[in-house]
Amino acid sequence: MAQRNCTYRLSELAEKLDGVIQGSDGTIFGLNTLEKATQEQLSFLANPRYVSQLTSTSAGAVLVTPEMADQVTGTALIVDSPYMAFAKVSQLFDWRLDDESEGVHPSAFVHASATIGSNVTVGAGVVVDANVTLEDNCIIGPNCVIQAGSIVGQSSRLEANVTLYPDVVLGQNCLVHSGAVIGADGFGFAPSKQGWVKICQLGGVRIGHSVEIGANTTIDRGALDHTYIGDGVKLDNHIQIAHNVVIGEQTAIAGCTAVAGSTKIGRHCTIAGHCGITGHLTIADHTHITAMSLISKSITASGQAFSSGTGQEKHSDWKRNVVRFRQLDDMARRLKQLEQKIDNLSIEGLNK
Amino acid sequence: MAQRNCTYRLSELAEKLDGVIQGSDGTIFGLNTLEKATQEQLSFLANPRYVSQLTSTSAGAVLVTPEMADQVTGTALIVDSPYMAFAKVSQLFDWRLDDESEGVHPSAFVHASATIGSNVTVGAGVVVDANVTLEDNCIIGPNCVIQAGSIVGQSSRLEANVTLYPDVVLGQNCLVHSGAVIGADGFGFAPSKQGWVKICQLGGVRIGHSVEIGANTTIDRGALDHTYIGDGVKLDNHIQIAHNVVIGEQTAIAGCTAVAGSTKIGRHCTIAGHCGITGHLTIADHTHITAMSLISKSITASGQAFSSGTGQEKHSDWKRNVVRFRQLDDMARRLKQLEQKIDNLSIEGLNK
Amino acid sequence: MAQRNCTYRLSELAEKLDGVIQGSDGTIFGLNTLEKATQEQLSFLANPRYVSQLTSTSAGAVLVTPEMADQVTGTALIVDSPYMAFAKVSQLFDWRLDDESEGVHPSAFVHASATIGSNVTVGAGVVVDANVTLEDNCIIGPNCVIQAGSIVGQSSRLEANVTLYPDVVLGQNCLVHSGAVIGADGFGFAPSKQGWVKICQLGGVRIGHSVEIGANTTIDRGALDHTYIGDGVKLDNHIQIAHNVVIGEQTAIAGCTAVAGSTKIGRHCTIAGHCGITGHLTIADHTHITAMSLISKSITASGQAFSSGTGQEKHSDWKRNVVRFRQLDDMARRLKQLEQKIDNLSIEGLNK
Repeated sequence: MAQRNCTYRLSELAEKLDGVIQGSDGTIFGLNTLEKATQEQLSFLANPRYVSQLTSTSAGAVLVTPEMADQVTGTALIVDSPYMAFAKVSQLFDWRLDDESEGVHPSAFVHASATIGSNVTVGAGVVVDANVTLEDNCIIGPNCVIQAGSIVGQSSRLEANVTLYPDVVLGQNCLVHSGAVIGADGFGFAPSKQGWVKICQLGGVRIGHSVEIGANTTIDRGALDHTYIGDGVKLDNHIQIAHNVVIGEQTAIAGCTAVAGSTKIGRHCTIAGHCGITGHLTIADHTHITAMSLISKSITASGQAFSSGTGQEKHSDWKRNVVRFRQLDDMARRLKQLEQKIDNLSIEGLNK
Repeated sequence: MAQRNCTYRLSELAEKLDGVIQGSDGTIFGLNTLEKATQEQLSFLANPRYVSQLTSTSAGAVLVTPEMADQVTGTALIVDSPYMAFAKVSQLFDWRLDDESEGVHPSAFVHASATIGSNVTVGAGVVVDANVTLEDNCIIGPNCVIQAGSIVGQSSRLEANVTLYPDVVLGQNCLVHSGAVIGADGFGFAPSKQGWVKICQLGGVRIGHSVEIGANTTIDRGALDHTYIGDGVKLDNHIQIAHNVVIGEQTAIAGCTAVAGSTKIGRHCTIAGHCGITGHLTIADHTHITAMSLISKSITASGQAFSSGTGQEKHSDWKRNVVRFRQLDDMARRLKQLEQKIDNLSIEGLNK
Repeated sequence: MAQRNCTYRLSELAEKLDGVIQGSDGTIFGLNTLEKATQEQLSFLANPRYVSQLTSTSAGAVLVTPEMADQVTGTALIVDSPYMAFAKVSQLFDWRLDDESEGVHPSAFVHASATIGSNVTVGAGVVVDANVTLEDNCIIGPNCVIQAGSIVGQSSRLEANVTLYPDVVLGQNCLVHSGAVIGADGFGFAPSKQGWVKICQLGGVRIGHSVEIGANTTIDRGALDHTYIGDGVKLDNHIQIAHNVVIGEQTAIAGCTAVAGSTKIGRHCTIAGHCGITGHLTIADHTHITAMSLISKSITASGQAFSSGTGQEKHSDWKRNVVRFRQLDDMARRLKQLEQKIDNLSIEGLNK
């Protein structure tokens, strides 16, 4: 992998970001945090809690809002949204990106019936099976396996060691991280006296454009119909998407969350890490779910936040409270009885 | 991978399923849901909540019980258990299955001391180490690694990118999905002033027949004795089975559940997703554990269900209740005091 | 992989372990549990609950403390700490270890600019990219991918199918298990009206010496600065370490735990399995976190234990209590009202 040259004049960056320089122009070799940036690096202030670092930073320039500009002692690059500007500039400085195709590595195995677009890179040890299509500008990392009939859309990238089972369709501009497995069998078995009987998983997986899929995340194939992931969905690492799940556009899910079979998640949801969402639910658009929540009922009204769990406690306190949790129903009944007793006392004229 | 031809006459399926056709025979090219099936596809009704779709479906035929047969407006294929019939028929229509061996791919590396049965397929990039045995009719997907002395039983299949460490024995008719790692070191360290000292994990893994292991699931090797997985066990994706765990026959575990070291799980248990089971426990046969439960005590009576957690709430409600959870022990004491005060009031003759 | 010969005279082991034999010398071919050990095997007693097995065991010798020695009916090998002695002796009996280099496998692809130390083993199908350094005595398992500029320190081992992204530095004597992915992109996106905009992850990963990383564990690269893992850290399987996390020396984390972005975990912490730790926290040294806890606030005092959750209940009991959890705030208010009513009753002279 060749490394790109990532050096820019500050004025060049200002133009790309539609920003204004307050101070002197200079050469920027990279990005860093306010705390660690050097004279050759650009930094940014998006979170007000770091405002005190504006005076101590050694950064060559700092991305700030117009409101914060007068607090910058060095050079400021003034933009409407420093966080968005930082996102854009991070792409300019991504030394790992490399637009030059390296072609098909001699140690890759590509089936004669596969269709390989132009400017495609296929890494060492890759296996591309029958009737696979790799569209233009795809990058397939080393040791990936792409099975029969699957399609990788234009300009999508699979990092090393990704597995696509048969009949997986990936849209354009997707990024799939290492260890991800897309299209493995959904977990479906019919009980019988002789044990579980496998329900073969005959559907595939359909993934939209601009989807990012984290390391070691799994998306199972559908039982009959497909599993669907909408455009712009972002999945972190270690996520489990079961068979026939549908995820709406631009929904983002953090690491280690599991979504059980046939659940439909709306668009623009944000789901924190380590959540569990049970099967056959419908989750409305713009739902927000906090970390480590169990969602076991459908959510119909959009734009709401949900949680579960008890929150963090010192172990010694928690032990006492957990015992009481198991007495909660009893406590509730006793509270009710007390209320009735007190009411009776009042009725008897004792409390006026 | 060649694709099978999966076309059947409905009468042919009726014979295989021990079913009766109500309506006309025809050719069936595939399976689908009641909602999406076309005239050339077979569907099924197992869940009563979809009964209204019997009239609207375009399916060429529908698997139903005798009781439901008169509600089918088109052709019915009447069977005792539509769900079981669906499971069986799903196997007939699995276009991915292919009984024809493709032999050992030229890019696979097979150690001279390995034993390869008849009709075995070894995919591209596979590594088969010393003294490995692949029994008859095995299929080893591309880029799998099978380490020294391990055995893959007759007619078992490893999908792409599976890793078997040394001394892993897999029974017959098993299916292991991509990214699964079987036989990695259990997590064992002795504390010392100089830091953790590794306890080498000298046991192996013993897996029974007809076991399915999901994508990216891990089963660690034992410390001294082996880790054991019984016949017919079904493990979903992202499951962690720690060293020296024993899982009884026909137990099924859903995705993202973790079982800590030396725990013995009984037979015919069903464990939902995202559960945690701590170490050195014994779980009785036929235990059922609901989603995202923490199990930290042994379960001795069989056939019971267990749960933990607080259930899902709107975040705003949950925040109020969670604060109270931390006051629970205090609340319980105050409740007790009130009860005593009221009793005292009564004793003083005020409440008769 | 060649297997080592692991046979020792008991007197030889006594010398290595600084122990004393009570009974007769003999040849030891392996280790096993008290329950399963044969005459040719060494066992140990570390946990007092197994003391009754001292009389029933068939072990050729048993590692015990001086205090327990007189309870051993056969041969005892007396040491200060049987558990630590067992850890040391487990390394002597690890038949999988093999110090003899096998060199670079002909099917491995090693970039011309890579630096390969002496006595290095590179397995079949491995891909070593540009400017990678593999220091002396490294072992790289089959089908690993090591990307541009990464470094594997002296005597470190990657098991099969490990992925290192670019700019990952691994210290000496590390062990990384199969399916681990180190250096994948952190989960960073800026929201915009057109959807999520990717924040390229420009930092790397820096891992200390003697670190063990479990199967299918992921450690993401930093956004600007690196992600840091301290010396002697032990990570179990399926762990998620997000971007810019810092983990202090000798901290051990059990399986399926997730640590969100930029959180700093102290030294010598022990974190149980299936925990979630939210982002931007600071966790003090020597913190202990119990299984399946959610940690969402920083922990400043060192040496404390934390928990969350409700604990395990029979499902039928749990259902009743969970309903009450949702009434907790209401219950707390009613309890307060009752207390006031009772106080009023007392004030009115009714309760003296």
